Amino acid sequence: MLGRDMQPVQISDMLEAEKRIRKVFPASPLVSIESLNQQLGAPVYLKAESLLPSGAYKYRGAVNKITALVEQYGKDIRIITASSGNHGMACALAARNLGVAASVVVPVPTPQIKKDCIRALGATLLEIGATYDESFTAACQVAEEQRLFYVHPVSDRYTVAGQGTIALEILDQHPDIKRVVVPIGGGGLITGVAYTLKTLKPSVEVVGVMPEGSAVYAESRKAGKLITLERCASMADAVVRKTGEEYLYPYIEKYVDQILTVSEDSLKQAVKLACIYGKLTLEGAAVLPLAAILEGKTQPGSDTVLICSGGNIDQKVLLDCLNA
Amino acid sequence: MLGRDMQPVQISDMLEAEKRIRKVFPASPLVSIESLNQQLGAPVYLKAESLLPSGAYKYRGAVNKITALVEQYGKDIRIITASSGNHGMACALAARNLGVAASVVVPVPTPQIKKDCIRALGATLLEIGATYDESFTAACQVAEEQRLFYVHPVSDRYTVAGQGTIALEILDQHPDIKRVVVPIGGGGLITGVAYTLKTLKPSVEVVGVMPEGSAVYAESRKAGKLITLERCASMADAVVRKTGEEYLYPYIEKYVDQILTVSEDSLKQAVKLACIYGKLTLEGAAVLPLAAILEGKTQPGSDTVLICSGGNIDQKVLLDCLNA
Repeated sequence: MLGRDMQPVQISDMLEAEKRIRKVFPASPLVSIESLNQQLGAPVYLKAESLLPSGAYKYRGAVNKITALVEQYGKDIRIITASSGNHGMACALAARNLGVAASVVVPVPTPQIKKDCIRALGATLLEIGATYDESFTAACQVAEEQRLFYVHPVSDRYTVAGQGTIALEILDQHPDIKRVVVPIGGGGLITGVAYTLKTLKPSVEVVGVMPEGSAVYAESRKAGKLITLERCASMADAVVRKTGEEYLYPYIEKYVDQILTVSEDSLKQAVKLACIYGKLTLEGAAVLPLAAILEGKTQPGSDTVLICSGGNIDQKVLLDCLNA
Repeated sequence: MLGRDMQPVQISDMLEAEKRIRKVFPASPLVSIESLNQQLGAPVYLKAESLLPSGAYKYRGAVNKITALVEQYGKDIRIITASSGNHGMACALAARNLGVAASVVVPVPTPQIKKDCIRALGATLLEIGATYDESFTAACQVAEEQRLFYVHPVSDRYTVAGQGTIALEILDQHPDIKRVVVPIGGGGLITGVAYTLKTLKPSVEVVGVMPEGSAVYAESRKAGKLITLERCASMADAVVRKTGEEYLYPYIEKYVDQILTVSEDSLKQAVKLACIYGKLTLEGAAVLPLAAILEGKTQPGSDTVLICSGGNIDQKVLLDCLNA
């Protein structure tokens, strides 16, 4: 596919990514809020990716990838992606800021608010397919026909490198870090973070967390090979998927120490706790690490960072959690 | 009162305050979230004081004052304050981290959650009086009798200097700033911020915002002298007060360009907007600047910073706003 890069990622990719994104936005804050710490019985640090301009960490990969494409091919390129959520928004915003034309293919049932937001950013919105898989197939076809550059949400060396910059920031903000707890969906975030940490500071423990109802990498680890789930569902919509990524699976097996799963009830409680005591609006996927602490599956501590991946939660879902 | 300093504030006080607090916590983030910007029709930057360890900007003044007292008198001092809210919590946290004994006098009707939080921080909690004024009188008496150092929430040179560090951070994070919009309650925050900005970059416009139902400095400006309100009420509980501060009034008159007022309805809408689109849990007082934008009384813009003073909102009040 035009523009896609599936070469092995190198630590130099993360350092170059950091230079690119630092021209666009500052490091996300690493916050430790006393009222949340009291609730947990020990302090934790929250890496608030929800406060990036697009409301999620995906902006890192999108900015890095699209900037790298512009460096290589010039500003007249056009990019395309398929996404119903955070990645589509991130690509539309990154492309607008770089002056690059963007198309985003979304499944027809995507919430209106997300469609409006992508359109407001000046991207061409194409509503094709009932699911992400159908949108993805359509987007690949459009990319071929119109010679557009494809910005894959997870399986691309530049996307992974962009997400890895989170780890560089954490090492800078909290040099004494011993454990990082990370949500897993497609695997791009944890691959970037785990590869960077294990390369630069191998003593750091990397813990991944998935929802019980959508835990393809946890199941794959048990099976000893990448498997496909028969069904998947969770309120953590940003991480729901039946399949893992061939490109990322070897990294996850090599660099991630543990993969935990958590219940839907814990996710709801964690969204509420984050909002009331942690002062952050976080989406379901973003509270996977906090939910793992609530379930006692990993421990809080002043040397522990929870990556809070995004804050794009529907108002109705948030209210549902706060009322729980 | 022992330890209190009401000398005129100097810009060197802010620079020393920044050195003290930077050993305790990093700069609060300055965030610009695309989804909120779309709602407002133009970008704004939010200075998220809600993400300081105590959940509010008050931690700056408390850390600066108590650290300065320790520098001057040693670690064996004991401090006292009266506060039903953010300042009491900030003093208890700052004192704990410095190893200093603290007493906090709260009005009897203070919410249990705040009492628990102050106690959990190891402070001595004294429940005296029905209102802040009664607690204040009692705290002054205890301070005299037991020779405790008083940490006043607003009228103290070191407290004001601590709050002024917000302006130093803004000038560093956004050197092109043209307008800062600031909540006003007792006046310590806006005095510190306005004095620092007008001294270091006089072209910056400083706009203060108060709730219609509790606007003592707005009314005082109209009257040409500091007045006392007959009654006051607002959901922005942190800024509700009948009287202004003699120590701060001249600074506010000299350095604040405009004082606006906003309705309770706008505050509710602003809390909701901040939570859903701005990804931040903010209390009523913290959204005064956002409410002024919603009412069209001040304009959004990429050169505009809204100081979001804190995030300590009751769960019930937050739900009420989200359902509005």
